[in-house]
Amino acid sequence: MRLNKLTSLLKEKAFDGALISPGTNLYYLTSLHIHEAGERLTVLAVNSNGEYHLLAPSLYENVIRDFPATFWRDGENPYGKLAEILKELDLSSGRILVENTMRADWLIGILKLGSFEFHPLSILMRELRMRKDAEEIRLMEKAAKIVDEVFEEIIGMDLIGMREKDLALKIELLIRERSDGISFEPIVASGENGANPHHAPGERKLGEGDLVILDYGAKWEGYCSDITRTIALGKPDKKLLEIYEVVKNAQEGAFQTVREGLKAKEVDKAARNYIAEAGYGEYFTHRTGHGLGLDVHEEPYIGPDGEVILKNGMTFTIEPGIYVPGLGGVRIEDDVVVEGGKGRRLTKAPRELIIV
Amino acid sequence: MRLNKLTSLLKEKAFDGALISPGTNLYYLTSLHIHEAGERLTVLAVNSNGEYHLLAPSLYENVIRDFPATFWRDGENPYGKLAEILKELDLSSGRILVENTMRADWLIGILKLGSFEFHPLSILMRELRMRKDAEEIRLMEKAAKIVDEVFEEIIGMDLIGMREKDLALKIELLIRERSDGISFEPIVASGENGANPHHAPGERKLGEGDLVILDYGAKWEGYCSDITRTIALGKPDKKLLEIYEVVKNAQEGAFQTVREGLKAKEVDKAARNYIAEAGYGEYFTHRTGHGLGLDVHEEPYIGPDGEVILKNGMTFTIEPGIYVPGLGGVRIEDDVVVEGGKGRRLTKAPRELIIV
Repeated sequence: MRLNKLTSLLKEKAFDGALISPGTNLYYLTSLHIHEAGERLTVLAVNSNGEYHLLAPSLYENVIRDFPATFWRDGENPYGKLAEILKELDLSSGRILVENTMRADWLIGILKLGSFEFHPLSILMRELRMRKDAEEIRLMEKAAKIVDEVFEEIIGMDLIGMREKDLALKIELLIRERSDGISFEPIVASGENGANPHHAPGERKLGEGDLVILDYGAKWEGYCSDITRTIALGKPDKKLLEIYEVVKNAQEGAFQTVREGLKAKEVDKAARNYIAEAGYGEYFTHRTGHGLGLDVHEEPYIGPDGEVILKNGMTFTIEPGIYVPGLGGVRIEDDVVVEGGKGRRLTKAPRELIIV
Repeated sequence: MRLNKLTSLLKEKAFDGALISPGTNLYYLTSLHIHEAGERLTVLAVNSNGEYHLLAPSLYENVIRDFPATFWRDGENPYGKLAEILKELDLSSGRILVENTMRADWLIGILKLGSFEFHPLSILMRELRMRKDAEEIRLMEKAAKIVDEVFEEIIGMDLIGMREKDLALKIELLIRERSDGISFEPIVASGENGANPHHAPGERKLGEGDLVILDYGAKWEGYCSDITRTIALGKPDKKLLEIYEVVKNAQEGAFQTVREGLKAKEVDKAARNYIAEAGYGEYFTHRTGHGLGLDVHEEPYIGPDGEVILKNGMTFTIEPGIYVPGLGGVRIEDDVVVEGGKGRRLTKAPRELIIV
């Protein structure tokens, strides 16, 4: 079980234990489906001897089986019960890791239960989660296949005159009918809106000559995909065609750079240098990519400060872009796994410019 | 400005300040739209002298205007900048309120910046937010009107044979085309699934004789509605018809009980006693209602332990239910505002049993 790997790491790094609230880490470690605890205190306590115990609200009593757990009912004080669990596991003091996304009011309650030195859980979990096993990669391939299929659907649509927000909704529905849901709100950025990498799909209607950035993702059994393609509606501006080629080549160059043993920042550098040499350096304003897995953004980040050394099993996006205010933008993004020492694309939709 | 009300309360209750991360409290206090800070440290610091300063990532630089703010860029250490802000506001120590939903890793970072006694922000914010002003009630009326309209659409559909999850999606789309979005994932619980108040819409097809619980909500400019109606597909079981009448009367009785000056638990008691006297006490397994506003669950909670004294401007749901395992369930929910000393319904969809 993956919990055993965590306890080995706890021991190795001289932590006394970890307090893990619901989220992708808890799912990764236990395979328990605890999604909507909301405000009700839900914590898995783990110590470095390999002992663990879950505190959960009673509404999970019928869901959690074969797992050491204590349940609390509305009206009871859950912190008293947690204090007992911490005592039992010898975790009333010491160097304790805390799930990064735990609610602050829970941590404030826990602060009163002992004398702790808290550190964020991510410092160990990223080690565990960065390298995917064969089953995880299989699920990510499925999530990637779904977004490829959705792209085929999109380019078959009658897009001219459609509002960005309506296309974003259509993309969402196409994803939802094939998967466990979207991994983030789809982005549709058309024409000059494409110059804003954070653009929220709005009222603008797709028009003749537009480049349109489509950025969306699916989930499959918890695992995320994330793809971006930029398509043209009719013949676009010459400058935009030039930018498209620069981004496509930068993306391919970064992909070809992927090697086990290389630092993540070398992949970023490949894309960044190519774009800079083409004269668009100031218009590439974000990282080249991010890790992908149970979370849509996780380690390893592929940026200028990416010190993580790439290893087989790591999965991440490669998504350079160029954004020219007043004109528009281009971004091309694939999901990549390091395998046999080099990169393999999980997303396979065409990268040549498609003119719809 | 509402921030002034908070600083008055800070002074009154002898707190030195508050640290507020993005969420409905930050929006309520500042009207700033800061939704997707993600992992990047974003904190509004407020002291009891009425001084305040925001720390935000640089991607908000073009969005936040006329507000005292410091921005940090990727690669910079935001905690160093926050330490300066805390020093400037004389908040490097003392009794400090913290936004309940702040990420634990942020709080762990802040713990190192001084010597604090932390308390959850909700203990003051619920006072401020529970009583809505005229503008807030106008927005909530609009959100309620939307879910009433959606109910009209639903009962006009051809429902027999439709899967629960497909109806849930249709409801979501009907809400989204009329509003700023859903306030929570719609619940469709048909037949015996209705016996589970937490049922997630699934593969079950709606069939002749089913009672179907529909529970959904809309957002309008941040404010939530939340309605439940139970409809019949053809003629239902006699027992279910009896249960329907009990729930309808319990809901009406609870609504009629609403009075300024009464404790919230009296409203709960009205519904609970009625259901118990009808012989279904053990099958009413949740609170009678919850406060409603920028959050879909907030104070005042309408349960057996509801000590909040009702006042004009408070808004909450009244939603008793009866859930009989193996048979099915009934829940009827309205959004209610206390006005002129008594209750007024914001949701107005018919409460008599509709047989589609």
